Amino acid sequence: MLFGSAMDATVAAEPEFTPPTAKKPMLLCFNENPLGLSDGAKKAIEESTSRASRYPFAQVGAIKKELAQYMGTQPDNLLLTHGSAEAIRASVEAYNVPGKTVFVYPELTYSDGADVAKRNHIPVKTVKMGPNWSIDLAALRKLAAQQAKSKHVIVYIVNPNNPTSTIVNTQALFDWIKTKPKNTFFILDEAYAEFVNDPSFKSAGELIKEGYNNLVVLKTFSKIFAMAGMRLGFAYAAPAVIDNIENHVAYEVMMNQATLAAATAELKDKEFLAKSKAMNDESRKILLATLDELHIPYLPSETNFVFMDLKVPLKPFADRMKEEHILVGRPFPPATQWCRVSLGTPDEMKYFVQKLKEFRQKGFI
Amino acid sequence: MLFGSAMDATVAAEPEFTPPTAKKPMLLCFNENPLGLSDGAKKAIEESTSRASRYPFAQVGAIKKELAQYMGTQPDNLLLTHGSAEAIRASVEAYNVPGKTVFVYPELTYSDGADVAKRNHIPVKTVKMGPNWSIDLAALRKLAAQQAKSKHVIVYIVNPNNPTSTIVNTQALFDWIKTKPKNTFFILDEAYAEFVNDPSFKSAGELIKEGYNNLVVLKTFSKIFAMAGMRLGFAYAAPAVIDNIENHVAYEVMMNQATLAAATAELKDKEFLAKSKAMNDESRKILLATLDELHIPYLPSETNFVFMDLKVPLKPFADRMKEEHILVGRPFPPATQWCRVSLGTPDEMKYFVQKLKEFRQKGFI
Repeated sequence: MLFGSAMDATVAAEPEFTPPTAKKPMLLCFNENPLGLSDGAKKAIEESTSRASRYPFAQVGAIKKELAQYMGTQPDNLLLTHGSAEAIRASVEAYNVPGKTVFVYPELTYSDGADVAKRNHIPVKTVKMGPNWSIDLAALRKLAAQQAKSKHVIVYIVNPNNPTSTIVNTQALFDWIKTKPKNTFFILDEAYAEFVNDPSFKSAGELIKEGYNNLVVLKTFSKIFAMAGMRLGFAYAAPAVIDNIENHVAYEVMMNQATLAAATAELKDKEFLAKSKAMNDESRKILLATLDELHIPYLPSETNFVFMDLKVPLKPFADRMKEEHILVGRPFPPATQWCRVSLGTPDEMKYFVQKLKEFRQKGFI
Repeated sequence: MLFGSAMDATVAAEPEFTPPTAKKPMLLCFNENPLGLSDGAKKAIEESTSRASRYPFAQVGAIKKELAQYMGTQPDNLLLTHGSAEAIRASVEAYNVPGKTVFVYPELTYSDGADVAKRNHIPVKTVKMGPNWSIDLAALRKLAAQQAKSKHVIVYIVNPNNPTSTIVNTQALFDWIKTKPKNTFFILDEAYAEFVNDPSFKSAGELIKEGYNNLVVLKTFSKIFAMAGMRLGFAYAAPAVIDNIENHVAYEVMMNQATLAAATAELKDKEFLAKSKAMNDESRKILLATLDELHIPYLPSETNFVFMDLKVPLKPFADRMKEEHILVGRPFPPATQWCRVSLGTPDEMKYFVQKLKEFRQKGFI
């Protein structure tokens, strides 16, 4: 199974911290939002049940207007999808010229894009990571240019990147896209962008606003919006790009009433989003203070998870954490001694760092 | 817009009948279930909000077991999809051999399969309808056999058919599939099968149980389960067929927590399903009695809608019904004088037939 035994566990978000148990483990494994849905979203879902037997045409129109406002764009720049999983699949398929396409991506990143490419018989070509598991943009650009001489190239970049938690250099990325390299289409997966603190970061959405049509930005309600279990993502691109990608979904107008209700409520709830961001910052601070104290190296986190260097293999560490009813991220080769820890609530992180300290005392790390 | 102005209207299911208004029109246009979600499903959705921020891995596993039991099969015969829209898209794409495939279907049927084919640049070939807008299985079989000599053929049959409400001859259909015609794959869309009363009808699922792997049966929770706005469908086929179709969805494990909760509740609620079926039978009876009285011809309905011959063009009739705040089905050429009326509640049908009688008095029909 892709996600291992953690797939059997689903834990409700709880306001009061209780130590994890076998039945209710602490889920620091899936980069979910530990706050849970906003109260407004919960209420909106409950109200939506009276519409659940009806197709959601009117609601889809309404949320697209709301979302366009949130993104500072127009509805025809947006395509709603069932999670960003569907957006990734449809984007890759939309820009696949069968038999002529190559998928270019960094070797240590979210696997979904490459998985879709492989299922579509698109050859995938990876670029080795740069120093400190950074995405080597220069090498990616070089490889893409080389391939684009005879092939169509899809470049897939997750920014900030999963599992490394880091951002790429905005200027270098934008410079590359702005040259409009021939036969090259960029998929920028910005699932974690709302968590970024680094002021140099810019969403590639800025290039779409400037009129570029050689890229799509993919977003999700699973992270800052705390809706991983509600499955809503979207693509943001030039209208012609959106039309192309829309050809590869079923019916965009067929979305889930409960999801649309929740997402609409959260889009309007600036307070919840701010709280979600602030909590993430606080939890990160708690974790990083202990990692510093224990001299455990980590990458600069611009996301709701931290990638840390155990300096010992991941598996025994993860197994021992599991014995403590804490589930951490899966293996991400080739970073075999690194562990991805999703940020829980501040209380959860206090509990987790206590375990880290105990592990150090026991000589496990 | 595909569905016209009715897309702007969404009406909550109400236990008490109130005459339709401009704001709350009577929706007899989308073959939705007027009962609305079961109370158990509503409660289950409300409970699911505490899990909405978590990925639904455990819940997907659980419902697949429940659904397998309901269908009398095994979980690996089933693939969950975002409505049957995704199942149709993925099934067509899974059996498309690019450049070599032809899509064969009856000219008067649900358009989604053919739309997917066209978007995938698959040539579509239709067969004219038989007497009384029946699906001409013999002609379909002949065309498919002819095409299969040099092409791969996807045959798409909706059974019972939409918009005609009728079933095909089970024996003739099964005989055809059982001959395992070369280069031919069958997509049997059985969205309305639970409403059938004709004892000769059998689900093509029986052939899957017998081991045939040249077909897939597509099902939905949108109709008898009253979950059109929750987007859950599934494919039922041999495990190898399911694996093939699964390659064309994103992540099957990524379904909606609220949807899974509602569907699980309804799968267990035999009483609700029986009530839904009984209400549909009652509503159909009310409508057909008036159609008989007014000598308005109709096809034998095995679904939650009735296809009736106005003997005058549909548009002015539909426009006048809209003035009465009743929305009927869209045009289905070439049956330009026929109207598809979705069955509402018995109270709604009593109101609707009264309007039909008034229309007759006014000479509109």
